[in-house]
Amino acid sequence: MQHLLSMNHLTKQEIENFIKTARTIECDRGTLPMEQTFASNIFLEPSTRTKNSFYIAERRLGMDILDLNGVDSSVTKGETLEDTLKTLEALGVQLAVVRQPETGILQQAAQGLSSLSIINAGDGTGEHPTQSLLDLYTISKEFPSFENLRVTIAGDIKHSRVARSNAYALEKLGAKVSFVAPVPWRDESISTDYITMDEACVQSDVVMLLRIQHERHVIGGQQGDYLQEFGLTKQREQRMKDDAIILHPAPVNRGVEIESSLVECRKSRIFDQMANGVVMRMAIIQTLLKGELAYEYKNYQQQTIS
Amino acid sequence: MQHLLSMNHLTKQEIENFIKTARTIECDRGTLPMEQTFASNIFLEPSTRTKNSFYIAERRLGMDILDLNGVDSSVTKGETLEDTLKTLEALGVQLAVVRQPETGILQQAAQGLSSLSIINAGDGTGEHPTQSLLDLYTISKEFPSFENLRVTIAGDIKHSRVARSNAYALEKLGAKVSFVAPVPWRDESISTDYITMDEACVQSDVVMLLRIQHERHVIGGQQGDYLQEFGLTKQREQRMKDDAIILHPAPVNRGVEIESSLVECRKSRIFDQMANGVVMRMAIIQTLLKGELAYEYKNYQQQTIS
Amino acid sequence: MQHLLSMNHLTKQEIENFIKTARTIECDRGTLPMEQTFASNIFLEPSTRTKNSFYIAERRLGMDILDLNGVDSSVTKGETLEDTLKTLEALGVQLAVVRQPETGILQQAAQGLSSLSIINAGDGTGEHPTQSLLDLYTISKEFPSFENLRVTIAGDIKHSRVARSNAYALEKLGAKVSFVAPVPWRDESISTDYITMDEACVQSDVVMLLRIQHERHVIGGQQGDYLQEFGLTKQREQRMKDDAIILHPAPVNRGVEIESSLVECRKSRIFDQMANGVVMRMAIIQTLLKGELAYEYKNYQQQTIS
Repeated sequence: MQHLLSMNHLTKQEIENFIKTARTIECDRGTLPMEQTFASNIFLEPSTRTKNSFYIAERRLGMDILDLNGVDSSVTKGETLEDTLKTLEALGVQLAVVRQPETGILQQAAQGLSSLSIINAGDGTGEHPTQSLLDLYTISKEFPSFENLRVTIAGDIKHSRVARSNAYALEKLGAKVSFVAPVPWRDESISTDYITMDEACVQSDVVMLLRIQHERHVIGGQQGDYLQEFGLTKQREQRMKDDAIILHPAPVNRGVEIESSLVECRKSRIFDQMANGVVMRMAIIQTLLKGELAYEYKNYQQQTIS
Repeated sequence: MQHLLSMNHLTKQEIENFIKTARTIECDRGTLPMEQTFASNIFLEPSTRTKNSFYIAERRLGMDILDLNGVDSSVTKGETLEDTLKTLEALGVQLAVVRQPETGILQQAAQGLSSLSIINAGDGTGEHPTQSLLDLYTISKEFPSFENLRVTIAGDIKHSRVARSNAYALEKLGAKVSFVAPVPWRDESISTDYITMDEACVQSDVVMLLRIQHERHVIGGQQGDYLQEFGLTKQREQRMKDDAIILHPAPVNRGVEIESSLVECRKSRIFDQMANGVVMRMAIIQTLLKGELAYEYKNYQQQTIS
Repeated sequence: MQHLLSMNHLTKQEIENFIKTARTIECDRGTLPMEQTFASNIFLEPSTRTKNSFYIAERRLGMDILDLNGVDSSVTKGETLEDTLKTLEALGVQLAVVRQPETGILQQAAQGLSSLSIINAGDGTGEHPTQSLLDLYTISKEFPSFENLRVTIAGDIKHSRVARSNAYALEKLGAKVSFVAPVPWRDESISTDYITMDEACVQSDVVMLLRIQHERHVIGGQQGDYLQEFGLTKQREQRMKDDAIILHPAPVNRGVEIESSLVECRKSRIFDQMANGVVMRMAIIQTLLKGELAYEYKNYQQQTIS
């Protein structure tokens, strides 16, 4: 069975194929309606954007959707995620999209499934591969190649699954990735290349902002400090290269990681990312259900171990 | 972009067109299946009836539906309704049906949308235009004209968005509207024409009851007083004109605003209203998405200001 | 109008017809797509399995689905279940699947409905007829006849709607049913034939385990006692007849009513039950909506009284 759990599992070739498939779908060619194919969206953490994006992608592919959330699912009856997935498989469901708060538990849960594909839609502080793939797709529309592209990721690197997934993938594709973060939010296991936001804005082709969790807005002082020290201000935006772009996984905290007036500025691709997300998720679902990844999940495991 | 936010925005002609379209739909002519058209139902307050009515209307039109509620939406992540709507637009959604507790905020949120229509499904104590239009449709099936029709609206006028929307619309159509309410629930900005429930029942062609909020049942005394003083009792019903009808937006508080045995009596159109609601909402959605209102939203704004 | 409220209402012939219809559907013959037919799933208690099973069955039949739960339904506005059902009928809904905590209230609520069929998806400690029918379907795939089949139901008989529905039905079909339960969980109104789990495993063709409620795990001592005294251990499983099977309505409490390693053992039909549930529920819905039960609901009432 084919799953998408981590960007680390994908080869450069597979990432490029996802982008190619998304492009084909966006031009309205190549999808087959998947009538009587059931997807189950299991969101055990709140999420409008990702959940709706998957919902639309699945419906545009003609799939039927089981909507499971924390409130009314058996998870509240003490059933393990593993048994929930096996149950869905027994019910005839072919795809499970899972967002949940624990890091790294999907690998275990994916074992032993024989007709259900899993997509990781965010696991704790682990990974968020479909967000990464839609970011890559958005970038691919603006630049001829990832080779030597300068990308900066700014925010709470340590706790961000988006940062982790994108760091893996961008380096695999040949981009040069730098990071901006207050010292407590740095993670040396991802990178040691931390720069200032001023440096980032001058040198980058892509400035990727992360959402700051509300309870962590204030770093070393009063509200507003984060924007001045690490966020994208109007002043910094003006020093960016002319064809550089701004990304953000959204929802945006206006006035925290980005000045409110910049959310829809000329360089911003924030709303384009959302539109691209639907297309990329269609590409991902189609690729998994057609079994077009190079390796079966068992091989990933061996790869990871060796 | 065309929206339906207030009955005040509609001309007499436009109201009559909605009724005509609903009639055509009910006779099973004139709807086009809207495949791959996405509606988003955003209900930030509980509502079975309105939500399900829209759901069925949308599905009967062949639309796909994103179901957003307060629990799992980004609104809990502190995102503004405005950004939520822009996100849905970016995701490719064409219609947002919004029920939420703040009065009058949709006008602001509708600004700047370019491909998403908004329908106000109840905003605080503001308006509830689709309930009004289905009430009008129900009345139109019983009487040849609204001109000089005697209508009474009874209940908590001050806090009722249904009362407000219907007062606007009925007067525009030429009906004569009176009101019944305990003094603290009267609202002089809507009308100064308050009468007793006894007078109302004798003179009216249409007696429109409002739902009394549970916590406000007791007015100036013990439980049951409301029914005796302001509600529709069996005795009062017998003094109504022979062809007069009873309306109620439901859910009904049996024994509070209406005696339980009258809910399904010969004069009652309460369950018809529900059936008519589905048809009218189909008509509204179709009219907005086809852009058949006379004025674009920007023009409404100018109208309102001038 | 035809409803499915209790196994007690069904004749032997009707039960056999459900099984035959399910078999036909599983072989992919005989279903007509029910486009523009609306089902409403009303789950006022948490349930992944039953809810999703109905959802998939309804969608495979081409039906549209209104999803009502306790949180956002009018039930929270103090409306009775009866008025909710009448409302759904007015909205054009043809089928209501109801799971709710009160025993026996559906009979009352079903009165007066003229175009809405009700399926009892579990009422308090009352009945769960669709679970029973899927269990019977699962058994029918393994044994040529129910006549003289030895079945044991083990667990909290007193509070189990599954036990009650299956006891009724299995006896009607000619099976010999025994029960295993700690003394406080026995119910003499269902049966007086209580045996030990050791006896049950040796003599039964079918061992049907019930889910033990979490708060009642510990019976007369420390955790783990239940499994040793009343549950299915590896040792007991080895003493079962070679072609005997194990059933469980799930979700399973691994290590409580069954040793974890047995959940997917050769004799277990637990995951097959889930797959069979979808097919049987398609058969039930189709039978009710086509009006193929021998008796109208009014006749059941007379039968029960007489």
